Amino acid sequence: MPDRNRQILLVETPKGKLGPEHFRLAEAPMPTPKPGEVLARVRYISLDAANRAWMQGATYRSAVEAGSVMAGGALAEIVASDSPALVPGDLVFADTGWQDYAALPAKRAVKLPQLEPLTHLLSVYGVAGLTAYVGLLRVGRPQPGETVAVSAAAGSVGSLVGQIAKIKGCRVVGIAGGAEKCAWLTGTLGFDAAVDYKTGTLAKRLKEAAPDGIDVYFDNVGGDVLEACLFQMNLRGRIACCGAVSQYDGAPQPHGPRGVPGLLVVKRLTMQGFIVMDYESERAAATAELKSWVDAGKLKVQEDIIDGLENTPAALIGLLAGENRGKRMVRVG
Amino acid sequence: MPDRNRQILLVETPKGKLGPEHFRLAEAPMPTPKPGEVLARVRYISLDAANRAWMQGATYRSAVEAGSVMAGGALAEIVASDSPALVPGDLVFADTGWQDYAALPAKRAVKLPQLEPLTHLLSVYGVAGLTAYVGLLRVGRPQPGETVAVSAAAGSVGSLVGQIAKIKGCRVVGIAGGAEKCAWLTGTLGFDAAVDYKTGTLAKRLKEAAPDGIDVYFDNVGGDVLEACLFQMNLRGRIACCGAVSQYDGAPQPHGPRGVPGLLVVKRLTMQGFIVMDYESERAAATAELKSWVDAGKLKVQEDIIDGLENTPAALIGLLAGENRGKRMVRVG
Repeated sequence: MPDRNRQILLVETPKGKLGPEHFRLAEAPMPTPKPGEVLARVRYISLDAANRAWMQGATYRSAVEAGSVMAGGALAEIVASDSPALVPGDLVFADTGWQDYAALPAKRAVKLPQLEPLTHLLSVYGVAGLTAYVGLLRVGRPQPGETVAVSAAAGSVGSLVGQIAKIKGCRVVGIAGGAEKCAWLTGTLGFDAAVDYKTGTLAKRLKEAAPDGIDVYFDNVGGDVLEACLFQMNLRGRIACCGAVSQYDGAPQPHGPRGVPGLLVVKRLTMQGFIVMDYESERAAATAELKSWVDAGKLKVQEDIIDGLENTPAALIGLLAGENRGKRMVRVG
Repeated sequence: MPDRNRQILLVETPKGKLGPEHFRLAEAPMPTPKPGEVLARVRYISLDAANRAWMQGATYRSAVEAGSVMAGGALAEIVASDSPALVPGDLVFADTGWQDYAALPAKRAVKLPQLEPLTHLLSVYGVAGLTAYVGLLRVGRPQPGETVAVSAAAGSVGSLVGQIAKIKGCRVVGIAGGAEKCAWLTGTLGFDAAVDYKTGTLAKRLKEAAPDGIDVYFDNVGGDVLEACLFQMNLRGRIACCGAVSQYDGAPQPHGPRGVPGLLVVKRLTMQGFIVMDYESERAAATAELKSWVDAGKLKVQEDIIDGLENTPAALIGLLAGENRGKRMVRVG
């Protein structure tokens, strides 16, 4: 075990777009677990658009303060433990932050099963998979034959949402940035149509891709894409509000989408925000069903793995720019 | 029976604010019912903010076209019938339009019970009452002890929503225009607090009136009031979207409220639009319960009755300006 611990600090709260200048690689002494704590070695850091949102202020968690280790969930291995619940060698998911090692209360670490590839614990069997599963099935509640649209469709959550909707017998339209991602959605993941939001008029192209309208829209982005989808929603449609990545990096739009609340009334729409933490009780059953689909080859798991703790800032900046396809994570050690 | 039928025509689709110049009083021959139709004498015309929305284009009904009789629901008495379902003397609710007499298909007329005062058939036992009842209880779903806020609180629907919420054990905050209406809400209707949206900073005053936050917001107005309420919502709050009167008369805001979808996600809010027509199956039971509350003195019914068909345009214009307290209607004959 080294005697120094590499850490990535958030040195400044970004006012506009996130850049490398907001981070700094530092070294600290190895942390020492206090009573009830464990020492965990970080294996893979999960990168999520939400990381950026945390810098803006309190959300469903407190804000990440400038000068502290950047927060983030990771797959980690226990190397020392003062708790009977965890022993060295155990794999856990925890908010370790962006560093090689973290000392944290044992009760803040969720023990994970051993499976291969390990990285699936951060993608389809992790937050992304459960988010897609409960957001689509519990909040969106699609019926067979309905049209489901999903934004950030080539991302970690979106790529699973679309495939789960296909498994459930829906017509699926993905919204993503760039022709290459769109071709991947329809060619590899089996989406029925894909719309490149960077090209042409979104409203028009969405109408072509969803000629019968949209029954369920799984919203990862907010902003203009949400507005365009609102106008295409069918009577009694449901919008599952998962995130608003278009609003996280840089100044958010000073207003919301047109059609709120007018279209909600006229079309009897439901918009519902959700956070995956609220569905912890569903995790075991959802993971089992996701696994059955993966094992049967019905659900393709795309991962985008970047090497080296020092590359984590660039990996997040790239994720916010839409670089990744599937679940992005950083292999630390 | 006269041989001429007075009618109020919408002569022009208003581009901005509705004014008297958009209407004209005309005379037409008495209509003759066709097979399957009835001839109805209009007694009371119901005035609703939705009348204005219908002029803007198709909503849950087709738009009212310039040059035609202004559409509107009314309490009417059958004077001739070609249908076995209705006989002269029957009271019905129907979209007769703004005129003394209307011929319309019998199946478009809903037979009403005879009760006193008749006007209650247009207020608490009419669309307003059922809208308040199902919107609050089925869409908002308040629990005892929760805080319910309602906008246009002194209006036909809002005044009932707040009182029903009190009956259900909630803390009730009304949002209305003017000190007089606010005093009436707290002094006469038993609301716990009232906020005059025309005075001071709404967000701040709402926070004072609802120090524990808002669990259910019944939205009749949209726009800035909706935005202010969004920021005061509690975790897992529900917003029942009933209407958007702030957007009907004049150019609607070119955007929606801030906080959509960001606050929906972080606070796990649900916003649901509804239209009372979808709850027809609940009408009998809801009306019975409303009647029990009225009879027990728990629910006060405020009506604002204006005389004369010729005054209907001014009555609607005044309603959009917030003149009325409770259900506004026009006594025709």
